[in-house]
Amino acid sequence: MSTNTRVLIRNLPKEKLAVTDYELVESPMPSPADGEVLCQTLAIGVGAGARAGLQGSASYAGAPQTGIVMNGQTISRVVESRAAGLNKDDLVVCGSGWQAFAAHPAKAVTRVPAIDDPAHYVGALGTNGLTAYFGLLRVGEPKASETVVVSAAAGSVGHLVGQIAKLKGCRVVGTCGSDEKGARLVSELGFDASVNYKDGDFRAALKAACPDGIDVYFDNTGGDVLGAVLFRMNTFGRIACCGVVSQYDTSNPAGGPRGVPGLLVNKRIRMQGFLVFDYASEYATARETMLGWIKTGAIHALQDEFKGLAQAPAAFVDLLAGGNIGTRIIRVAS
Amino acid sequence: MSTNTRVLIRNLPKEKLAVTDYELVESPMPSPADGEVLCQTLAIGVGAGARAGLQGSASYAGAPQTGIVMNGQTISRVVESRAAGLNKDDLVVCGSGWQAFAAHPAKAVTRVPAIDDPAHYVGALGTNGLTAYFGLLRVGEPKASETVVVSAAAGSVGHLVGQIAKLKGCRVVGTCGSDEKGARLVSELGFDASVNYKDGDFRAALKAACPDGIDVYFDNTGGDVLGAVLFRMNTFGRIACCGVVSQYDTSNPAGGPRGVPGLLVNKRIRMQGFLVFDYASEYATARETMLGWIKTGAIHALQDEFKGLAQAPAAFVDLLAGGNIGTRIIRVAS
Repeated sequence: MSTNTRVLIRNLPKEKLAVTDYELVESPMPSPADGEVLCQTLAIGVGAGARAGLQGSASYAGAPQTGIVMNGQTISRVVESRAAGLNKDDLVVCGSGWQAFAAHPAKAVTRVPAIDDPAHYVGALGTNGLTAYFGLLRVGEPKASETVVVSAAAGSVGHLVGQIAKLKGCRVVGTCGSDEKGARLVSELGFDASVNYKDGDFRAALKAACPDGIDVYFDNTGGDVLGAVLFRMNTFGRIACCGVVSQYDTSNPAGGPRGVPGLLVNKRIRMQGFLVFDYASEYATARETMLGWIKTGAIHALQDEFKGLAQAPAAFVDLLAGGNIGTRIIRVAS
Repeated sequence: MSTNTRVLIRNLPKEKLAVTDYELVESPMPSPADGEVLCQTLAIGVGAGARAGLQGSASYAGAPQTGIVMNGQTISRVVESRAAGLNKDDLVVCGSGWQAFAAHPAKAVTRVPAIDDPAHYVGALGTNGLTAYFGLLRVGEPKASETVVVSAAAGSVGHLVGQIAKLKGCRVVGTCGSDEKGARLVSELGFDASVNYKDGDFRAALKAACPDGIDVYFDNTGGDVLGAVLFRMNTFGRIACCGVVSQYDTSNPAGGPRGVPGLLVNKRIRMQGFLVFDYASEYATARETMLGWIKTGAIHALQDEFKGLAQAPAAFVDLLAGGNIGTRIIRVAS
């Protein structure tokens, strides 16, 4: 434990991200200052949204840089504490990124209770799960018997959105990029239907899957799926804009969907962007609720794991290509 | 008074609307059935939104037809009543459209009090004014000291939106298509600034006019103005989608703005379409408020008149080309 393994951003990709845009380096072990804790990374959550952070100033993550550790939410264990109120072996959620160890000020970590698999804290109990929870319930505002569509439905956020919507009594339709994923959404997670956006007849398939139109759309993708959904939205429908994964892996995003703003007016649609961080003061309550659902089996929090920091770039590139079902996690230590 | 002068839709325009898309005809005078009133049209309000009704099924107005009277809100006088509770000489707001007389069931008209100029009932006290009122206050939700931008700001809706926003303590910037209009917005109506969207350097001019960014955008146009505004919106900004005048006078609407949905996410912007009809139960209260503002001079309700039904097509074509300042009204009788 005398060195720290880290994955740095080597290049800012102009087009598709490649594993060679990262480099694995060994660095000196960080040492915590007064008021800080040294945290060992147990698992890292990888979300498509992080791709936006490599794109330039349009992202909420600020201007991208090379030579720094790739960002990411982590579940970590305190290995040394110089902060009051935090002790060795405490579990903490923090933003160590793609590295084995990091020192953080006490206020930059959140202590969480021990659970069977702490990796859930970067999945269903982490940013991804909280994004699903607040985006669907606060922005989408689904009501029982309404039709909810979620895109990237097999993803870390999407697979939870659909299950929460089912708990609220909605008809749930997921869009994803493979028939195999779609079948799992229905058979394992209780979705009412799935539609493969790569199908030539996607619009017709979406219509068939949503015979009563669409009341709530949880949009993880933007692009063509958003465009197709807009034409099937019901009057007074709500679109929760969560992410734009169709536009992340490029430096030349496409134009916006036809129908904006015309269809918004005619159908009185509300389209609202959100970031989960705006709900930070309510994380603890939401985590408790989600944990309850996981424990009772009401929600299946799927994990799709890669092992070791050396695999982190491949895990991310594969995620952007749609390789995951559930939350992509990099297990670093146990 | 033995015949009724009417303006019929002759052609559904494929591209720009022309006066020859209408025809003036003389028809038999309608006679009211039991429970109906015969109404003489005093003035007709002409709004750009009516152009959408000629475009096809995408409009809230339903599928377009030829051979029917062009639609429009009117302020009319009851000349014969066969309905309980309505009397000869009552003033009523109704949807007679472009014709001198129309018979309506009692429930299809709204009796209104006499005021100095009843034509206000198809302007600031009619659909246009109510659209400004509810769209700004309920959808835009401006707070004091915020920056409000309104497009088509010299139009029937826009010139009122800006003035209501000023009453709420906002900085108000209007976009319009001529420097002359823009100057009047500032000098006569109290706007803080105006920007001509036809300027080559529109985006820079918009930025200069909104040094603190934009909190609320009342969008009457869609298209390029919406695209430019999106990039200047502040975090948690609201866009009230009222109309899409940039896309009305064509049968091939352009694609949506870049930045949807990406910027909506990053800036947590809410973009919401509305139709004034959804607020019908509150019209009376809103009309009272608006009338109070007009009487005290807090709001200047500008009228831009054409005289006589024969001029109605020209009035509409000119409106779509941006010829009006304030509410375009066709005076038919006094």
